Amino acid sequence: MAAPVALIQGASRGLGLEFCKHILKNKTPAAVIATCRDPDGAAELRGLVGRHPGRLTVLGLDVSREEDIRGAAERVREGFGRLDLIVNSSAMLHPSGKGETSLRDVTAQGIIATLTTNTVGPLVMAKYFAPLLQKGGGGFGAQLAEKARQHSGIIVNITAKVGSIGDNGLGGWYSYRMSKAALNMATRNLSIELGRSRPRVVCVSLHPGTVNTDLSRPYHRNVPQDKLFSAEHSVSCLMGIVDTLNMEKTGKAYNWDGTELPW
Amino acid sequence: MAAPVALIQGASRGLGLEFCKHILKNKTPAAVIATCRDPDGAAELRGLVGRHPGRLTVLGLDVSREEDIRGAAERVREGFGRLDLIVNSSAMLHPSGKGETSLRDVTAQGIIATLTTNTVGPLVMAKYFAPLLQKGGGGFGAQLAEKARQHSGIIVNITAKVGSIGDNGLGGWYSYRMSKAALNMATRNLSIELGRSRPRVVCVSLHPGTVNTDLSRPYHRNVPQDKLFSAEHSVSCLMGIVDTLNMEKTGKAYNWDGTELPW
Repeated sequence: MAAPVALIQGASRGLGLEFCKHILKNKTPAAVIATCRDPDGAAELRGLVGRHPGRLTVLGLDVSREEDIRGAAERVREGFGRLDLIVNSSAMLHPSGKGETSLRDVTAQGIIATLTTNTVGPLVMAKYFAPLLQKGGGGFGAQLAEKARQHSGIIVNITAKVGSIGDNGLGGWYSYRMSKAALNMATRNLSIELGRSRPRVVCVSLHPGTVNTDLSRPYHRNVPQDKLFSAEHSVSCLMGIVDTLNMEKTGKAYNWDGTELPW
Repeated sequence: MAAPVALIQGASRGLGLEFCKHILKNKTPAAVIATCRDPDGAAELRGLVGRHPGRLTVLGLDVSREEDIRGAAERVREGFGRLDLIVNSSAMLHPSGKGETSLRDVTAQGIIATLTTNTVGPLVMAKYFAPLLQKGGGGFGAQLAEKARQHSGIIVNITAKVGSIGDNGLGGWYSYRMSKAALNMATRNLSIELGRSRPRVVCVSLHPGTVNTDLSRPYHRNVPQDKLFSAEHSVSCLMGIVDTLNMEKTGKAYNWDGTELPW
């Protein structure tokens, strides 16, 4: 059987970069396609290419540009013909780098920019890459015994606990919270459409915990030390969940520890 | 005590127009401010102005333009100095008029346009009008006995059952579903921020049922006759809920029959 193929979107740093490293290290002989806005500026990704000859492909893709996504899907189709896993990882708290602490900080432009990257991007990724996931070999996850219920591919949307409406007790961070709530709806909708007809694609939202990345850096001093995960630890937990995924677990949001996150 | 003031956003037709009629008829002497994109083209609203001298003010406001919202809030501040109720009513299924039946129909532009009207607009309305609601006299809803927990104003965001992630069993309508899920998060966040400090503002999402309006018209043939509400019936139910609102009911989504809608 052909080696599995994983595509990591938003792979130049943070969680996305760590997903690439994890799969290259722990999922031999899987191939990894890493997408980011500026491949020339992605020094760490270029280093990884050198250390894993023939296994890592870097593609330029700005998730806010539908044409970029369409073009990248076309290149993956030509080069690989299929996909087994997509992880949508790129996200922003807000264009300013800080979540809104109150309504005063809310602007239409800020919300729309955040929604475009965090929400619209992952859904448009699904639009163009779903046909490739439907040609996948089911190389990630834990297949069910019953052939008719097996999956060909998996979509992972990185969500956040603060995107849970039911869990929201603190408020603030309007743009980010709204973008992740809408992303969770996209996950749910995708799981229905891509779970209905064969071949089936599993689709979940995963919450990585509070991770030591650029996104969360302005808030690190408020996080207890044992609650601030390294990207390595977080991705190790999340890939542990991916290893258990199948059609019985599709259409839900999970925390890094495998517990279900309420909508 | 001064007469209550209600602002209905998206008031030229459908549910919004009906909210104006209902309040003018059943909530004497409440004043109504009706906003719509094109007051000159809003014949029904102009007729209402004539039939209710001095009680109805029509303002031009395109909910996708932050400057329009800021300007309208300034005019309301000058003319009324306060508000007791805002209903955010304008919405689209999708710029095409039809919800996406599958991923093939999804476009970045279509999602962003839908989010801009259905989600960003209501939140930016809250940004500029919250200070006026905090000066309201609590003229709508059912005040709690305890003075410290009483509310000065109410924000109603018109949501939809298909915007419930937990209730989503059918899929499709990506843009509309995502816009309403994100709007529900905005409602929840607003209820926290505006419920924290006095004077307090109640904030809820309300699902009107499937209503005989332009928005749902392409789908009427799929709706059993007794499930397709007139705008008059729906608004009568929703204003019945508004009559019961107080700080104990804030931060939730309710169906037209008063039952709670899951996130």
